[in-house]
Amino acid sequence: MRLVHKLVITVATLIVFGPVPFATVSAADRDKLLNEPGVYGTFAAFRVEDEWSRLDQRTRQAHLTSVKGVVERYREKLAIDTYLLRGLSGHGDFMLRVHSTELKDTQQFLVDMLATPFGQYLSSRTILNGLSKKANYVPGFPDALKTELKAPSESGPYAAVIPIRKDADWWALPQDQRLAMMQEHTEAALPYHKTVKRKLYHSTGLDDFDFITYFETAKLEDLHSLVLALSKVKEAHHNRRFGHPTLLMTIKTIDQLIEVLGK
Amino acid sequence: MRLVHKLVITVATLIVFGPVPFATVSAADRDKLLNEPGVYGTFAAFRVEDEWSRLDQRTRQAHLTSVKGVVERYREKLAIDTYLLRGLSGHGDFMLRVHSTELKDTQQFLVDMLATPFGQYLSSRTILNGLSKKANYVPGFPDALKTELKAPSESGPYAAVIPIRKDADWWALPQDQRLAMMQEHTEAALPYHKTVKRKLYHSTGLDDFDFITYFETAKLEDLHSLVLALSKVKEAHHNRRFGHPTLLMTIKTIDQLIEVLGK
Amino acid sequence: MRLVHKLVITVATLIVFGPVPFATVSAADRDKLLNEPGVYGTFAAFRVEDEWSRLDQRTRQAHLTSVKGVVERYREKLAIDTYLLRGLSGHGDFMLRVHSTELKDTQQFLVDMLATPFGQYLSSRTILNGLSKKANYVPGFPDALKTELKAPSESGPYAAVIPIRKDADWWALPQDQRLAMMQEHTEAALPYHKTVKRKLYHSTGLDDFDFITYFETAKLEDLHSLVLALSKVKEAHHNRRFGHPTLLMTIKTIDQLIEVLGK
Amino acid sequence: MRLVHKLVITVATLIVFGPVPFATVSAADRDKLLNEPGVYGTFAAFRVEDEWSRLDQRTRQAHLTSVKGVVERYREKLAIDTYLLRGLSGHGDFMLRVHSTELKDTQQFLVDMLATPFGQYLSSRTILNGLSKKANYVPGFPDALKTELKAPSESGPYAAVIPIRKDADWWALPQDQRLAMMQEHTEAALPYHKTVKRKLYHSTGLDDFDFITYFETAKLEDLHSLVLALSKVKEAHHNRRFGHPTLLMTIKTIDQLIEVLGK
Amino acid sequence: MRLVHKLVITVATLIVFGPVPFATVSAADRDKLLNEPGVYGTFAAFRVEDEWSRLDQRTRQAHLTSVKGVVERYREKLAIDTYLLRGLSGHGDFMLRVHSTELKDTQQFLVDMLATPFGQYLSSRTILNGLSKKANYVPGFPDALKTELKAPSESGPYAAVIPIRKDADWWALPQDQRLAMMQEHTEAALPYHKTVKRKLYHSTGLDDFDFITYFETAKLEDLHSLVLALSKVKEAHHNRRFGHPTLLMTIKTIDQLIEVLGK
Repeated sequence: MRLVHKLVITVATLIVFGPVPFATVSAADRDKLLNEPGVYGTFAAFRVEDEWSRLDQRTRQAHLTSVKGVVERYREKLAIDTYLLRGLSGHGDFMLRVHSTELKDTQQFLVDMLATPFGQYLSSRTILNGLSKKANYVPGFPDALKTELKAPSESGPYAAVIPIRKDADWWALPQDQRLAMMQEHTEAALPYHKTVKRKLYHSTGLDDFDFITYFETAKLEDLHSLVLALSKVKEAHHNRRFGHPTLLMTIKTIDQLIEVLGK
Repeated sequence: MRLVHKLVITVATLIVFGPVPFATVSAADRDKLLNEPGVYGTFAAFRVEDEWSRLDQRTRQAHLTSVKGVVERYREKLAIDTYLLRGLSGHGDFMLRVHSTELKDTQQFLVDMLATPFGQYLSSRTILNGLSKKANYVPGFPDALKTELKAPSESGPYAAVIPIRKDADWWALPQDQRLAMMQEHTEAALPYHKTVKRKLYHSTGLDDFDFITYFETAKLEDLHSLVLALSKVKEAHHNRRFGHPTLLMTIKTIDQLIEVLGK
Repeated sequence: MRLVHKLVITVATLIVFGPVPFATVSAADRDKLLNEPGVYGTFAAFRVEDEWSRLDQRTRQAHLTSVKGVVERYREKLAIDTYLLRGLSGHGDFMLRVHSTELKDTQQFLVDMLATPFGQYLSSRTILNGLSKKANYVPGFPDALKTELKAPSESGPYAAVIPIRKDADWWALPQDQRLAMMQEHTEAALPYHKTVKRKLYHSTGLDDFDFITYFETAKLEDLHSLVLALSKVKEAHHNRRFGHPTLLMTIKTIDQLIEVLGK
Repeated sequence: MRLVHKLVITVATLIVFGPVPFATVSAADRDKLLNEPGVYGTFAAFRVEDEWSRLDQRTRQAHLTSVKGVVERYREKLAIDTYLLRGLSGHGDFMLRVHSTELKDTQQFLVDMLATPFGQYLSSRTILNGLSKKANYVPGFPDALKTELKAPSESGPYAAVIPIRKDADWWALPQDQRLAMMQEHTEAALPYHKTVKRKLYHSTGLDDFDFITYFETAKLEDLHSLVLALSKVKEAHHNRRFGHPTLLMTIKTIDQLIEVLGK
Repeated sequence: MRLVHKLVITVATLIVFGPVPFATVSAADRDKLLNEPGVYGTFAAFRVEDEWSRLDQRTRQAHLTSVKGVVERYREKLAIDTYLLRGLSGHGDFMLRVHSTELKDTQQFLVDMLATPFGQYLSSRTILNGLSKKANYVPGFPDALKTELKAPSESGPYAAVIPIRKDADWWALPQDQRLAMMQEHTEAALPYHKTVKRKLYHSTGLDDFDFITYFETAKLEDLHSLVLALSKVKEAHHNRRFGHPTLLMTIKTIDQLIEVLGK
């Protein structure tokens, strides 16, 4: 009977959301959310509980269709990306990256997602919050370096999140010394600029880290080489915590993710 | 039958508490609890267990009405604030901040809340206790700075809790050196005084931290900038632990919180 | 049927233990256990599992009556004190402090308690063991200080446990240097001697700490001030670990504790 | 009925996979995956949940046959090795080591394995990812040493995984200083070259470590002596984390593993 | 029906193992395993899950009889000692210490034990592996000291396990300096040689520690004094980790252990 009850809800959900053409955030708006300063990025990793896999195939599909409805509804104002952790990382089964201009909108989305029948089988321990900001040090870089940084980077299917906490000495350094170190850091990263896409979020005060570094690449070996190159510059001495957790995953569409979770 | 039993209890609760006009702590008393020295503040984060979401809607609503009754009854002598962690922090689903002149009254409230049918679905791992005290260093500050500190601060909807443990060197410093550092700290914080409301609790001996710093703001970016500014002053070198956990959340009324938890 | 079975056991327990006048350890013996050197003190914090609260009121009362029987039986030779953690600390729901001249007697008591129907709903992760010893440093203190230490201290309703691990440098110091530091430590604590009762247990080799410090007070603010004062003396530089966990709680009789747990 | 349902699925699985001759990766291909640079190695430890052992013998056997089908299917393009942790390590019950030229293939395999009926009883917390690379330092070693390193090493039945994170100073050293230290390291390891087989994976940026060191031996005492010898060279001062977890296990065929897990 | 099924298995087990006279490892062989170098010692702590206590008395007794059969069968070639942690340590309910000349035999025993009906209610997180070796430093000690070390030590009923990890500086010291420090260490321990029995296991590369130190005593106060004395010598500065976990327990026969677990 409980199952029937849930199916009724799901069907109702389908009636309400299913056939409605979703007004997904426009490509231009998504571009803004992903590229402009002053946007909040949230990285939320979820573990699917064992009971989920004990449900029958049909119920799971119905539940996943319902959660997809919530994701699509919120895509009208949020940029939501979906990732598969399972099989690459022990920190969860999947991850959502959500960009918004107000964290309370992100919270509303995650609360609504967790209130779906599927959400009731999720546990959520890792949530990282960061803010995109204008580049701190780039304006002080030589012009040649600035130009190189403007070249486009290739992407996917792999993505990684490495949160970082700096030590007290780092923050106590004068701006010009930090600038010099960040220039060395940036030059060390240049050889991988084309094949590894990077994005930086500032998270001091928003969670237990100072930065969330986010990567996308088709060549994991280059991600490895990049992070190794960054380990060798002076600025690396000021990382009090690096990773813990390091999240490695693949970029998936919501439909691909649903296919995996529905199996 | 168990359900019937619980509904009977709930109805009984409603009969007893429901229509009674609650003598909530007066605005003046609440103001005292929130602003005077010698008041204890407790920050208790709760996780709602999975079984809760398996209950039917009606039972959940009844349970939440019952817990609201407990909160309102204790509001006669305690100042109780409610927050939503879910979707912003992995450390729990909601948080209560309780102010009282005696921690045993806070304990009694939390014990009674956990004894409600809803409380039986809660797990409680993070509890921080602190004490409001007269400002240690402000009396030694220049008059101009003291004046600026008297300007009002804006609030909500965001709130954050960052507990801090100082190192042994900090406590070994003579008062005048700590005063000088705290003046630098305070001046670094000034630009955010208007948009970020702060409150300090002393917790040495009451839990594993020395301070609980509490923030409210409508501009999360300013909270970020404030904590970053505080990372750059000399006093920051004496933080042995900072955050872990950092709790980020939104301020909610009890009714708003119940709405989220009842979904 | 299982319930019936349990009730039968409980009733049987009542018949055996209920009406028998318990030969509780005499006040004099309890005094010895609490005040003489060479006595072992065990601090065991317990969490009550969720299933407990799903039992009906009557079964819980019967189970608690049964566990009370075990406590009272062992009070013939052990000094057993009971505390409520719930609502003040995230480390458990209640704590037992047990004093005995042989730890195996304490173990036998806890094993028997965990074998009761109530014990089957308990999980036990934090157990600290310590030993009371003659004062190490007091004999070397000035006479005036010794006299002040003999004044009585007030007690309850609050209690706290702060375990401490010293660093290798501390133990490598010559006795006279440690004596000097402990004299400074003791003098810093003196202003709170009257309102905060302290007791020290030595635990090197018996668990992961060197000392268990135990406090009782009616004025929590003085406990805070005391621990803060102790943070400012030179000896504090040698604390490798301090707290983690810090347990804050209220002293309860076994009947008061049963009342809370039976709700 | 649920059991019947599962058996039907299992039988169906047997019909599909059972009698099909599996095109296992050829010995030559497996050799390449295990010995060439540019190959990814994943170490995934799994814990079997309690509910598994509550299933009847027949259902467990059917589930294990089904998971074996998945393993064998993927052996067409991946090198998959199986290990028993239970009884030697507290970090899980069994471990899979998977080699592939693309981590997404490894992910696909693990996702499919976790989607089998057996997979639904597994929890997976420890996943380490590394990359085989050309030797960094060997080209700079004296010829005599190079020759000695070419001698074959004996293997099994024991295996161990020790992940390592270097400190910032290590990475800041110039290549020639690291070369000198690694030569000392290699010479210290030589006496155990014959009896302990070693393989190195680079994991910077792919998980929270810099290296995953993997060992096979029939003489555990030599593994101990080897790791001890490596603790005594200068390079060991640059290990910020060593082990945590150290995984000790025995190499098992998939059939041997199934026999243990089916009991 | 499940119960009936289990009872049938148990009865079958009794028929097979019950009346068979077990060929326990001879006293001489046990003596060799416990006293000769080149023997592996495994310390495995187990937690009994809550569901166990929900089984009826008879089923539990049958299950425990069955597990006793496994222990006795393996005693033909392994030395197996049993300990009660419950009530003295939060790290589990009981511990097994197993000595064998090959760790794979120990693994086989633990795997078989965990496959019994009782084993299905056990969780196993702490497993430490070590190796007995010829004394490293004793040959360099003065003759008088060597003689004193040959005196017998008293034993039980208490036992403790303290695992230790040394720092990189320790291993980098030349042998003669380590010898001098270990002589100081040994002399500090001498006063407790008679009342506290000690045994050392080397575990570098076999788990996350370098040493497992094992103690037996009837005088716990002497164990405390011994560990305290060892904290005061120079070698103690090189302990990077000491305990975590420290396991305190009582030595029990398998029958005594079964009595406790069957209650």
